[in-house]
Amino acid sequence: MNNFVYFNPVKLIFGKGTITSLSEVLPKDKKIMLVYGGGSIKKNFVYSQIINSLKGFDFVEFAGIEPNPAYETCMKAVEIIKAQNVGFLLAAGGGSVLDAVKFIAAASKFDGDPWNILAEKAEIKSALPLGSVITLPATGSEMNAYSVISKKATNEKLAFYSQEIFPNFSIIDPEATYSLPIKQVINGLVDTFVHTVEQYVTFDVNSPLQDRQAEAILKTIVEISNDVINKQNDYESRANFFWCATSALNGVISCGVPQDWATHMIGHELTAFYGIDHAQSLAIVLPRVWKHNIEHKQSKLIQFGKRVFDIKGKDSKKTAQKAINKTEEFFQSLGIKTKLSDYGIDAKEAAEKISKRFKERNTKLGEKEQLTYKDIKNILKKC
Amino acid sequence: MNNFVYFNPVKLIFGKGTITSLSEVLPKDKKIMLVYGGGSIKKNFVYSQIINSLKGFDFVEFAGIEPNPAYETCMKAVEIIKAQNVGFLLAAGGGSVLDAVKFIAAASKFDGDPWNILAEKAEIKSALPLGSVITLPATGSEMNAYSVISKKATNEKLAFYSQEIFPNFSIIDPEATYSLPIKQVINGLVDTFVHTVEQYVTFDVNSPLQDRQAEAILKTIVEISNDVINKQNDYESRANFFWCATSALNGVISCGVPQDWATHMIGHELTAFYGIDHAQSLAIVLPRVWKHNIEHKQSKLIQFGKRVFDIKGKDSKKTAQKAINKTEEFFQSLGIKTKLSDYGIDAKEAAEKISKRFKERNTKLGEKEQLTYKDIKNILKKC
Repeated sequence: MNNFVYFNPVKLIFGKGTITSLSEVLPKDKKIMLVYGGGSIKKNFVYSQIINSLKGFDFVEFAGIEPNPAYETCMKAVEIIKAQNVGFLLAAGGGSVLDAVKFIAAASKFDGDPWNILAEKAEIKSALPLGSVITLPATGSEMNAYSVISKKATNEKLAFYSQEIFPNFSIIDPEATYSLPIKQVINGLVDTFVHTVEQYVTFDVNSPLQDRQAEAILKTIVEISNDVINKQNDYESRANFFWCATSALNGVISCGVPQDWATHMIGHELTAFYGIDHAQSLAIVLPRVWKHNIEHKQSKLIQFGKRVFDIKGKDSKKTAQKAINKTEEFFQSLGIKTKLSDYGIDAKEAAEKISKRFKERNTKLGEKEQLTYKDIKNILKKC
Repeated sequence: MNNFVYFNPVKLIFGKGTITSLSEVLPKDKKIMLVYGGGSIKKNFVYSQIINSLKGFDFVEFAGIEPNPAYETCMKAVEIIKAQNVGFLLAAGGGSVLDAVKFIAAASKFDGDPWNILAEKAEIKSALPLGSVITLPATGSEMNAYSVISKKATNEKLAFYSQEIFPNFSIIDPEATYSLPIKQVINGLVDTFVHTVEQYVTFDVNSPLQDRQAEAILKTIVEISNDVINKQNDYESRANFFWCATSALNGVISCGVPQDWATHMIGHELTAFYGIDHAQSLAIVLPRVWKHNIEHKQSKLIQFGKRVFDIKGKDSKKTAQKAINKTEEFFQSLGIKTKLSDYGIDAKEAAEKISKRFKERNTKLGEKEQLTYKDIKNILKKC
């Protein structure tokens, strides 16, 4: 395996009734900003439990973070933080809210134009401390130091990383997922699955433990997905789903192995240009990225197909192909459409637009940086 | 699954040539105590690389930590620390050295009799900061906040836990294992295997991800053990082994599941009374603890047998029995003897002596605290 550094100081508080522990982990000596989205946390017990736990704390609310959180919205929060001397950020909601809070935390302490945090990967020397009550199993944002932010003005969607933006704590009560729209639940299953394969279906570096840790998540997602979708108030399947989502992106399965992320990078552009959901973009792009790279990824695709989907067969390209088809069928079985045309998007046009952007940025994608803008164009044409 | 809190702030630096990163992670403003054992780190590159990295740092050495580290030895280090105003502890060696350093860190800041940290589980309010260069894949001590200490005077071996004794960092260079005596390598394989099953072969709480994460470690250990033992300088198998050992006891696989640890508690007494190696004690006790609890653990034993050892058969007691036998055979295949008589120890005498101690302490063991001192006596008689 490759050398690696693993560091993840997030305190994860997981289970039924855990939101009440907020009062024990929040700082008593700082003004807190409670940040949330469109008010979904008011449709269940989350908002009221948080407000209850905040009794005796000095806090202000900031609502209105949108899905694919906007740079413009985040900067409004930064203004209030500076004006009101806020010292701690509490995110409540899904990954979008938490991603926004991570960016707000960094931008509040940043000298210069905060857009450079995203566009130039500018160094972040410090950030406001933050914590989260996370209600959506999907992004893994609750236990990592990544954030993805969109700029409305330019249709850009960019990610950044900094050890300064690890949440101090994240609280997960799986019961908070009962009131989620089913579309978001399905998106979360796809997101978790694709996060995992981005760190696993690459090339072999002799990492049997990490491979099996990734397969553990994938097999569990396949096994529980039916219950997760069809039993809305089933604590066990929702808890297992949430722990899979968190485990897929907390850094454990990526220790010492190559990572791909081409599907995510291309998918982000589809969301930025056409507004389709993140998970939809992944379900469309992943099978075509894999087909394009089938020779390169063959041995991992075969292992994945055999271990996760119980595919039988020789160690051949045909078996790798079966693994790709089976993955697309799995997404479809969840009710996710896997073609751009299903969303009224012209594949040729998308291929031109998006590959142009990668050409301009001079970025190559994939675990060996093997995909040029020309490859990306070919991949998108087949989407 | 059960509710849980996961927190592990250790920075893990893993791979070839990583000891040189010491100079980046050690504090420049504190006097450092370098703690090690009988000098095995001088037989390879570890000691010289550490001394090289310590250039420019203010440090003192403390050697002579023994296997099953003694309370008495630790207290000598505490004296020097207080006299010389040491502010940071650096452990170099195996789990024993690191366990000693964790205890020394806590004892150095403890008001009152430090033995109470172990005997009374006294609260630890603070500890000296510490880091490690760990050379033995076995105890997982490099990435947790546990420590086990023995008192020579009374033949006692006791564990304690405190969030204050997490290492700030742990450095693992798998090449440091090349010079280990083969007996220690084999012990480490058994230790890793038993750590994992203590957190897995219990009863079902609907935790499919955690189950598969545990099986990932077990299957990998079974798969690589031959190479680990027979290819002394094979980087890949040693690296995979080390990552299994760390992952078995860093808290990930125990999230939200019951834990047993009866084998360890009984094994510690065998080591305390008879001086046999920790791993030997585990290999002797585990199969008998499982046989004694076979009905209670049946469904997990069957799952374990089928998934880890590919045992075929119905979901019956017979299959559970096969899983136990297969485990004992696996230990034996590594060259570990699994009977007390193999070590010249009388099982009846050990059963009397050790069960008496559990009777006096009024402790019950097992995942449901189902084992009384009478059960422990029966288990040991069959060892």
